[in-house]
Amino acid sequence: MRATYMFGAGDVRIIEVPAPTLQAPTDAIVRVTMACVCGSDLHPYHSMPASEEGSPMGHEFIGIIEELGSEVTCLSVGDLVISPFAFSDNTCSFCQEGFHTACKHGGWYGTPEVGGAQAELMRVPQAAGTLVKIPNDVDETFLPSLLTLSDVYLTGYHAAHMGRVEPGKTVTVIGDGAVGLSAVLAAKQLGAEKIILMGRHTSRTDLGRKFGATHVVAERGDEGIAKVMELTDGEGSHVVLEAVGLMPAYEQAYGIVRPGGIISRVGVPQYEDAPIGFGSLFGKNAMLAGGPAPVRAYIEAAIPQVLNGEIDPGQVFDADLPLSEVAEAYRLMNDREALKVIVRP
Amino acid sequence: MRATYMFGAGDVRIIEVPAPTLQAPTDAIVRVTMACVCGSDLHPYHSMPASEEGSPMGHEFIGIIEELGSEVTCLSVGDLVISPFAFSDNTCSFCQEGFHTACKHGGWYGTPEVGGAQAELMRVPQAAGTLVKIPNDVDETFLPSLLTLSDVYLTGYHAAHMGRVEPGKTVTVIGDGAVGLSAVLAAKQLGAEKIILMGRHTSRTDLGRKFGATHVVAERGDEGIAKVMELTDGEGSHVVLEAVGLMPAYEQAYGIVRPGGIISRVGVPQYEDAPIGFGSLFGKNAMLAGGPAPVRAYIEAAIPQVLNGEIDPGQVFDADLPLSEVAEAYRLMNDREALKVIVRP
Repeated sequence: MRATYMFGAGDVRIIEVPAPTLQAPTDAIVRVTMACVCGSDLHPYHSMPASEEGSPMGHEFIGIIEELGSEVTCLSVGDLVISPFAFSDNTCSFCQEGFHTACKHGGWYGTPEVGGAQAELMRVPQAAGTLVKIPNDVDETFLPSLLTLSDVYLTGYHAAHMGRVEPGKTVTVIGDGAVGLSAVLAAKQLGAEKIILMGRHTSRTDLGRKFGATHVVAERGDEGIAKVMELTDGEGSHVVLEAVGLMPAYEQAYGIVRPGGIISRVGVPQYEDAPIGFGSLFGKNAMLAGGPAPVRAYIEAAIPQVLNGEIDPGQVFDADLPLSEVAEAYRLMNDREALKVIVRP
Repeated sequence: MRATYMFGAGDVRIIEVPAPTLQAPTDAIVRVTMACVCGSDLHPYHSMPASEEGSPMGHEFIGIIEELGSEVTCLSVGDLVISPFAFSDNTCSFCQEGFHTACKHGGWYGTPEVGGAQAELMRVPQAAGTLVKIPNDVDETFLPSLLTLSDVYLTGYHAAHMGRVEPGKTVTVIGDGAVGLSAVLAAKQLGAEKIILMGRHTSRTDLGRKFGATHVVAERGDEGIAKVMELTDGEGSHVVLEAVGLMPAYEQAYGIVRPGGIISRVGVPQYEDAPIGFGSLFGKNAMLAGGPAPVRAYIEAAIPQVLNGEIDPGQVFDADLPLSEVAEAYRLMNDREALKVIVRP
């Protein structure tokens, strides 16, 4: 089958690999009908050392079940399913507490063992816990929004959920990428009244306004902090959703968070140590939350929201390419010519 | 009047200073009847550079109102009052949200402007918002416990509150000082079923068991982490209350916190930068909370708990000295011969 591999920074190719096969009675083989490129795929695109074997890419997909292990009794061959970007058994104590990305039997896609989703076929471990069925006859106009439930929208939702967004709260979102815009939409869903979006790409912040942002701050650093303080009567933001993962974004976050407020991060931190002492978090009792989104915990509630038109997170996709052009999909996103790109095997 | 000043590391003396006077119509002058030495007073006791002018010490006290500014109408001369360790107006938006230590008109005791509480008299700014009345005829056996509402018990309570301790949660407390033991008592009050106390001073951990600790772990570092993981079936602690403030305690905290769990710090961090990336907090969606305790937010609910015998946090006091022996009080605590010392002007 054809699969996307990255062989080093900027080097994405389609190659022929053996089709995956069932390896455990809890596995499923899914024919991918729709995948996409993630902002996090751009990190290795910038920095991966060159290698001959390469790495399989992709972790967001919708597909049709082609084969099932003997223990997967809640699904059928031919079912249309969404997969969260991480697999999980949905039954262990961590899953029961809503933290599926810490599942005791879970793991990540895009590894040599499991393979990546920018491919024709995908082996899904823990299929009964992982895959979520959607109606086979779903109107295809909903598919892009349903695909966002695999990662991007529900990652934004996780930020807002962990940040305890609720009516009356002022929320500031740092980052106008697809996750940041999703966080705006999720904050709006959870009832935030003032939503400040920090970002400077007008085409993106315009979509942010459509999703619910009431203010856009293009400034960064101290100027950006001053602007948000001005917009919050000098008090700061109850909730800060940090959807970038770089240190300047975190510094901005603790600069604008209100005393007793929460910073919720979903941008994968590209740092390990950062300020959390008296001068940053402790002095003002600011909280820090966030991590890899357990989208499996939220997906079942989000599907009807998409299907009844309440949310349309699929608007983050602004390009749609066949799998054969996956290298171009990466280039478009890397050069900021596209916000997020669908890839169809 | 006599007041306690520190003139450098290990150099605590009683000196004569002018009695404080009302400086604003919102001030009160309080005759201190009972004060104490705080674990945080030991930080300058270890490291303060020598100076001729010295610094006024003390921030926890009970006393009798001696004089009132014209705008303080809710209190009367002669009232017996408890003061939180920080003053606040109790009306600004941050106070209303329960974060009095960030009060827009608030501040700290123990500064040259406001003076310290290990003294005969104390000027209290924002007296109407700060001071809380207790019955003048209160049985004096309750006074040590009431004095803990000025700081130590309610600082432990703040840790537990911000850590969202509730029935069914496993709570680990790092540190067997007076704040750590208070955090054990508060966790018990909030319904925690398994309370693991990390500390190695038997006389202290014995009081911890009396306060509600179900397990004591004397080991530190990796051994301590392994022990807590063993006690939690390898899953980690839902809540970690960090009552030390040193980096090894923080490292222990993220080592034992469960995925999706909370670390709540009330030990004033003696560091600014610390690990919060994928390998420490982010990867397991662990949250970080805590800061200077807004004890004013909790004090009114705690007074009846003391007076009806529900809690007896005053057991953290194991020495009681006259103000003239305040230097000895510091020495006893510094040499770990006493857990916490009352000082009576």
